[in-house]
Amino acid sequence: MENTNWLWFEENYENEYGRNLRVAIKDVLEIRQSQYQKIEMYETVAFGKMLVLDGVIMLTEYDNYAYHEMIAHVPMISHKNPQRVLIVGGGDGGTLTEILKHANVKEIVLCEIDEEVINISKKYFTSFADSFNNNKVSLIIEDAAKYLATKKDYFDIICVDSSDPIGPAEVLFKEKFYLDIHSALTETGIAVTQSESLYYHTDLIKNLYIQNKKIFKYASYYYTLVPTYPSGTIGFSFCSKKYTPFMNLDENKIAQLKKLNYYSLSIHKASFDLPQFVKRQLD
Amino acid sequence: MENTNWLWFEENYENEYGRNLRVAIKDVLEIRQSQYQKIEMYETVAFGKMLVLDGVIMLTEYDNYAYHEMIAHVPMISHKNPQRVLIVGGGDGGTLTEILKHANVKEIVLCEIDEEVINISKKYFTSFADSFNNNKVSLIIEDAAKYLATKKDYFDIICVDSSDPIGPAEVLFKEKFYLDIHSALTETGIAVTQSESLYYHTDLIKNLYIQNKKIFKYASYYYTLVPTYPSGTIGFSFCSKKYTPFMNLDENKIAQLKKLNYYSLSIHKASFDLPQFVKRQLD
Repeated sequence: MENTNWLWFEENYENEYGRNLRVAIKDVLEIRQSQYQKIEMYETVAFGKMLVLDGVIMLTEYDNYAYHEMIAHVPMISHKNPQRVLIVGGGDGGTLTEILKHANVKEIVLCEIDEEVINISKKYFTSFADSFNNNKVSLIIEDAAKYLATKKDYFDIICVDSSDPIGPAEVLFKEKFYLDIHSALTETGIAVTQSESLYYHTDLIKNLYIQNKKIFKYASYYYTLVPTYPSGTIGFSFCSKKYTPFMNLDENKIAQLKKLNYYSLSIHKASFDLPQFVKRQLD
Repeated sequence: MENTNWLWFEENYENEYGRNLRVAIKDVLEIRQSQYQKIEMYETVAFGKMLVLDGVIMLTEYDNYAYHEMIAHVPMISHKNPQRVLIVGGGDGGTLTEILKHANVKEIVLCEIDEEVINISKKYFTSFADSFNNNKVSLIIEDAAKYLATKKDYFDIICVDSSDPIGPAEVLFKEKFYLDIHSALTETGIAVTQSESLYYHTDLIKNLYIQNKKIFKYASYYYTLVPTYPSGTIGFSFCSKKYTPFMNLDENKIAQLKKLNYYSLSIHKASFDLPQFVKRQLD
């Protein structure tokens, strides 16, 4: 039975489109205004703790693994020997936690514009907090677009774990940023970038694909299922200088990854198989 | 911008769980009370026309193809030569429309308990309405559980296009019904049954799987993406007396199907690749 004491959270962004997930709240844990955005942390009824930035749901304890495992392991397993990894955004620590499951990684840089996101995440997403203390990890509090422009031929993997193309992350959806990603990658490098819902943002996905085909040797899109994101799915642009997503698949490497809830060899492959209405846009 | 004249529809069922899709309504087209259930038809802001039964969203014009193509074409293409097809429920006509795309089908029986669902659907989902007039189609207004118990060794394919296991469809989730499906199928027969969300109903999916493994030679689960269903995904139990979903795949047969928006050979295969947290439940 619905509890009449519940508050209900709604994304103001999705309200404009006449569709919106309502999430019942048991407890308001914290609300802060940082230099960049409004940061909210809730204890929800259905999804555990939930982080909200500028009114948009970023992650919940319930389903974040479906996002973090797929943004991390798909590029890492597609590469033969990834040693240096950049995470753009990702201040909650979830992507970082997944990347650290790859024992051969030597260096991970996490570049997050808003230190307050890291601080509040460490406090409430305690299962990710330890990852920030790992001695392979460097934290850079800076606009990733600026940081990236300074690096050449350095990273094997770049995961752009950004918010939506409104507010501070807008620049992360521009061509300049993708050109800088290309330069910052080694000659075997792979980047994946948060690229929204195949249902609600088909045009954005198509435009990124057309752009990335010009910049990289291989461009494609893959998706995962996240109930608390609009339409229940979110995906990633896959941008690669040498390897397709299927060239280096190694079951033994996957078997060494601990505590997987979503990712597997078969999911890796299946996640690039898109419904016809999307596939036709990317042909 | 959100229009302040919009009404917002919410599923009362999902509200109890502290999560709920809100759908903005432009116009209330019709509300009826049939012998079995409350039937509502809306013009929505984001999803076109939307049919609601007993407070639960059944289909919208926007995304129903993702459901109907997958409930119809996966079993039809998995079978070598399906000639007689039973649709249980499916009074909206969407599944029927997809089955009719298979030219070799000789007979389709649609058994729907509530004639009012058919009447209101023909009126508003006009692209499906003609399918009811096809001379291959017989309409039976009856409790499908009763109808099915009278048929032996008759249907090549049975699609259980039901609502949720509350209200009139409750009986369609019981073992007796699956045993009757088994009897009503020919020795090469395949049944697929609406089996809810891999996120929100993992236990139901597991229980149906354990049950169906005992009754059928092959049992599995596959899924599709439907933004207007809870969690954005819905799936089907696949129950088969002879064929796996992969034995008879024929690209030429698929190429003959007209106007596909979702289904393809690669989606057929990928839809059985389940996230680890579900796959582990079905091993």
